[in-house]
Amino acid sequence: MTNIEENEGSTVIKQNADYHPPKSWRTWLIGRPLSTADAPHQTIGKVVGLAVFASDALSSSAYSTQEVLVVLALAGVGAFHYSIPIALAIVVLLAILTISYEQTIHAYTGGGGAYIVSRDNLGELPAQAAGAALLMDYILTVAVSISSGVAQIVSAYPDFYSYRVWIAAGFVLFIMLINLRGVKESGVTFAIPTYFFLITMSVTVIWGLFRYFTGGLGVVVNPPEIESLTALQPITFFLILKAFASGTTAVTGVEAISNGITAFKEPRSKNAGATLVWMAAILGTLLIGITFLSYQISAIPSEAETVFSQLARTIWDSRGIVYLVVISATTVILVMAANTAFADFPRLSALVGADGFLPRQLAFRGSRLVYSRGIGTLAIIAILLIIVFNASVTRLIPLYAIGVFLSFTLSQTGMAVRWWKSGKLGPDEKKVERGSTLVRDDHWLFKMVVNGAGAVTTAIVTVVFATTKFADGAWVIVVIIPLLIGAFYSIHIHYKGVAKKLSLDDFGAPPRIIRHRVIIPISGVHRGTMAALRYANTLSNDITAVFVEIDPLETQKLLEKWKIWGDGVRLVVLVSPYRLLFEPLIQYIESVTTQMQPNEIVTIVVPQFIPSKWWANALHTQTAWGLRLALMFKKGIVITDVPYQVD
Amino acid sequence: MTNIEENEGSTVIKQNADYHPPKSWRTWLIGRPLSTADAPHQTIGKVVGLAVFASDALSSSAYSTQEVLVVLALAGVGAFHYSIPIALAIVVLLAILTISYEQTIHAYTGGGGAYIVSRDNLGELPAQAAGAALLMDYILTVAVSISSGVAQIVSAYPDFYSYRVWIAAGFVLFIMLINLRGVKESGVTFAIPTYFFLITMSVTVIWGLFRYFTGGLGVVVNPPEIESLTALQPITFFLILKAFASGTTAVTGVEAISNGITAFKEPRSKNAGATLVWMAAILGTLLIGITFLSYQISAIPSEAETVFSQLARTIWDSRGIVYLVVISATTVILVMAANTAFADFPRLSALVGADGFLPRQLAFRGSRLVYSRGIGTLAIIAILLIIVFNASVTRLIPLYAIGVFLSFTLSQTGMAVRWWKSGKLGPDEKKVERGSTLVRDDHWLFKMVVNGAGAVTTAIVTVVFATTKFADGAWVIVVIIPLLIGAFYSIHIHYKGVAKKLSLDDFGAPPRIIRHRVIIPISGVHRGTMAALRYANTLSNDITAVFVEIDPLETQKLLEKWKIWGDGVRLVVLVSPYRLLFEPLIQYIESVTTQMQPNEIVTIVVPQFIPSKWWANALHTQTAWGLRLALMFKKGIVITDVPYQVD
Repeated sequence: MTNIEENEGSTVIKQNADYHPPKSWRTWLIGRPLSTADAPHQTIGKVVGLAVFASDALSSSAYSTQEVLVVLALAGVGAFHYSIPIALAIVVLLAILTISYEQTIHAYTGGGGAYIVSRDNLGELPAQAAGAALLMDYILTVAVSISSGVAQIVSAYPDFYSYRVWIAAGFVLFIMLINLRGVKESGVTFAIPTYFFLITMSVTVIWGLFRYFTGGLGVVVNPPEIESLTALQPITFFLILKAFASGTTAVTGVEAISNGITAFKEPRSKNAGATLVWMAAILGTLLIGITFLSYQISAIPSEAETVFSQLARTIWDSRGIVYLVVISATTVILVMAANTAFADFPRLSALVGADGFLPRQLAFRGSRLVYSRGIGTLAIIAILLIIVFNASVTRLIPLYAIGVFLSFTLSQTGMAVRWWKSGKLGPDEKKVERGSTLVRDDHWLFKMVVNGAGAVTTAIVTVVFATTKFADGAWVIVVIIPLLIGAFYSIHIHYKGVAKKLSLDDFGAPPRIIRHRVIIPISGVHRGTMAALRYANTLSNDITAVFVEIDPLETQKLLEKWKIWGDGVRLVVLVSPYRLLFEPLIQYIESVTTQMQPNEIVTIVVPQFIPSKWWANALHTQTAWGLRLALMFKKGIVITDVPYQVD
Repeated sequence: MTNIEENEGSTVIKQNADYHPPKSWRTWLIGRPLSTADAPHQTIGKVVGLAVFASDALSSSAYSTQEVLVVLALAGVGAFHYSIPIALAIVVLLAILTISYEQTIHAYTGGGGAYIVSRDNLGELPAQAAGAALLMDYILTVAVSISSGVAQIVSAYPDFYSYRVWIAAGFVLFIMLINLRGVKESGVTFAIPTYFFLITMSVTVIWGLFRYFTGGLGVVVNPPEIESLTALQPITFFLILKAFASGTTAVTGVEAISNGITAFKEPRSKNAGATLVWMAAILGTLLIGITFLSYQISAIPSEAETVFSQLARTIWDSRGIVYLVVISATTVILVMAANTAFADFPRLSALVGADGFLPRQLAFRGSRLVYSRGIGTLAIIAILLIIVFNASVTRLIPLYAIGVFLSFTLSQTGMAVRWWKSGKLGPDEKKVERGSTLVRDDHWLFKMVVNGAGAVTTAIVTVVFATTKFADGAWVIVVIIPLLIGAFYSIHIHYKGVAKKLSLDDFGAPPRIIRHRVIIPISGVHRGTMAALRYANTLSNDITAVFVEIDPLETQKLLEKWKIWGDGVRLVVLVSPYRLLFEPLIQYIESVTTQMQPNEIVTIVVPQFIPSKWWANALHTQTAWGLRLALMFKKGIVITDVPYQVD
């Protein structure tokens, strides 16, 4: 298709780029490039949606009980019975969040993550706070889930203990690849293991409960040793709060669905909302079941064997085939839980990038229609975290949930404010504010109370978490979030400044260029020089060749040749007593340019010699690159290198 | 001084570059820049010369005995008495070499290293073999001397054992800095410690001999444990040869002076020759003295404590202050011995570079009149070697001496050939061959025999070394030298090819450029685009702006703006269904250029936006750099980026 039209005096030719990407190693790795026109088809239904977005939340049932017990163990095994009320409290929290977010999903059909909701209803700063908190937590989701998955493997095969960091890094790279292929294929890839996990987990819990109530469930055989403590702490309210905080990591996955509504098939909100409710119900049931059974079998939290592994081998009586199936399913779901973050981090960073608070390149979709740069960034940082924290879930947990709960709070506050504003509108009134349309909702007061309650609850959890875990590592996050927000604003100020300075509003075009001078730095007279000279002749009549003299003998030779080949061009020889090449040249160029008028320009034409083999570049001085770097910030100077290819 | 003259039709302006290097951290680190006119003053006399060039040779007395004992220890301590005849054999070898090289120094007043002598008298291939062997051995000299110096420190302070690699690397960097300052200052810096070492070493040996002959010298108290062997080897001729080979490392420093004759004050040859004889005499004496005493006190070779440390504390009765002074002096001289290599490696690599067998940049003298790049290269490779070999002298030794003896052999053979040719000349005849002048020498036959004997001796040592040490690591060198020679020739062929292809001999100048087309890739219409358009207007009337469409909405906005600001310039919109930017653009440019005539050229004018802060570059897509890399090898395309600076 070529399409030529007149556009007020200038010809506009529109044509399809003939470019068809060739098959390459990238095709093999991430699939053939997808055309932009393919985009709308890449959506998913409820069944696949549960697999893609809920694996994070569901899988956390595999470590949340253990992290509660780790804290309670500080007061001795006698405190373990507190794990059951704590689990119930977490389920209540989950219920509040689910109701709250169900409302968000229906109000924000285009995707209602904390970032968008905060931006629309609370303003820029809360939005960036939510953005920073969420981005960080997506990274931590990857690190925690993968580390926990590897901990399951290590429970079953203790020989792998010393390789756990590298196994974890390998998993992150694997998920990265799957995500670079695109969301639809990854949805299918993830549906089977998610449902496999759901089935094995449910069967295990049901069988465990059946055995418990029929009296056939014993306690763990050969439990791992409890980490020896010098002195047991008394059981305090603070300790119970701290254990509760650890357990809240189970609900961190709730946000995922509301952030990813656009990935669902139409009707989006209905599908997404139903998926959310299903997810919460399953998660709550599993959490209570696992915590109850773990307490009954007297499981001991340990780095060597996960609580869940102890539970599985007690319910199934041995480390037999069923045990291995259950552990495998759990490992796989945990590894795949990281996929939720891989679905959301790139989407959110693209949003923040498009708003100009992160590099804009993050909003650029790659050849497979996914935000490839966000995916890559997430993988790299998550791997670094895993290495730094030695793939230990217990060491990562204190950093984990603050960000999530902070963004929950902001998001729910934003929703409450939104209902409040909607209540102020007339029956058929519409109000467009910060790009989102607000209509009156008849149940605004009820909905405001629901979201308000959600906001208060999550705000309390945020404070509890930050306080009880502060010394264990939460302080890092308390420091990093403001720093991140600061960085976001620096980037934003930069983009705004640039946009203003590049804007053509009140642009008084400078006069046309009348005087065009050309300077050619030469190192000798050869075919490369001649090519540059030939090119310079098309630019201007005012040409000066410049030679830096280090050895007077060289100058003599040069002058001889210049007589023959110089074509009458003026030659300046700069004597350099300190044998420096660049500095005298740059100083000369600067002395020429200092007194220029706005209608003058200087072009530096650099003969650049291109060897036929890349390694040969090391054998030649790269004058053009050096000059470019040195003169980049000077106005009125254009540097052109005229390549001379040798083949 | 500005000097304007007519040079057959073109004006030539010669002027002193006004550039005076500013004071900076480099000034503080390596001193103020030196003008080329300062060069001849940077020479040294005999006293300083001995310090600069002999420290390598003299310091090897500190480890050579130990390396002989390490080999003999394979046959048990009963074999240690062989160390004395071996030391005598080494001194005989030293004498032969000294006489041989004394002749070279007088025949080659301009510097007679193995490279030059081989090049003049044997041809290109032997010269490159000598060059490769010597360059490699200078690097090993640095690694071995520094490692041995650190071994002395570790003997005195065993706590430093685990830091030895980093201490060694620090020393290399320190010597690098001193050498970047220039030879004269480093001469003074090195004279004091060299003479301090000579005095302490001589006093120690004399006091030891005195105590021995008066019967007061005992054996080592608490010697280190001998490394336990599963089975002792019988004492064979091969083992003795191997021990001898280890000891020959003591004579490797002989070449240094003949290579560095130009650094001496006039009369150069006389001064250099005298320095050589003194050096050999001192070295021989020390070697025999140390070996004899080490045997008498029953010193045990060990990685934990050097033989020399055992000797010093036995002679001085304890690890007291005198012991520490002796060990310090030895450490310092060993560290400084590396300086010999730092004086010679850059000089030789500059020679080889000027001949076009190494990158020519190595022949470029830095602001302090030294070959800075050679100095840097040497430091980096030596540090890598130290890291790889864990700063162990015993592990480095098998790689060390082959190269030296190979170059000795080539050099002495070259001298013998030279005398033979000189003998064929008439009484006052002169012959210029490969740049060196040959005159008849009346004693040519005697001199030929002397150098011939040197060649045969060193050839035998080369073979002995390569054979006995082959399995211990010498094979590496046997592999690397041919590879290096191959690399040298690849570089040479490249330079020759380029020179031929750039040559203006039979250069039929192509027709003047008649058609000049300009393509401007744009990402939007803003001040940067306008700057590029304004510049493009000075180049040609045939201008095409190209926009790659990823989002049709963007195109609409662009077209609106283009109506106002496009200045009637033709606009091509390339629709990119796969959201790729570069590929369609490059394909378009290629389609334009494929049918060009020799009198046509295309300039790609890229608007390049220069943010005021360097980090902000990460926030903008760097189109110009990408295009440049992609189109570098295409003919008839010039890429110009027009910078637009925001401040």
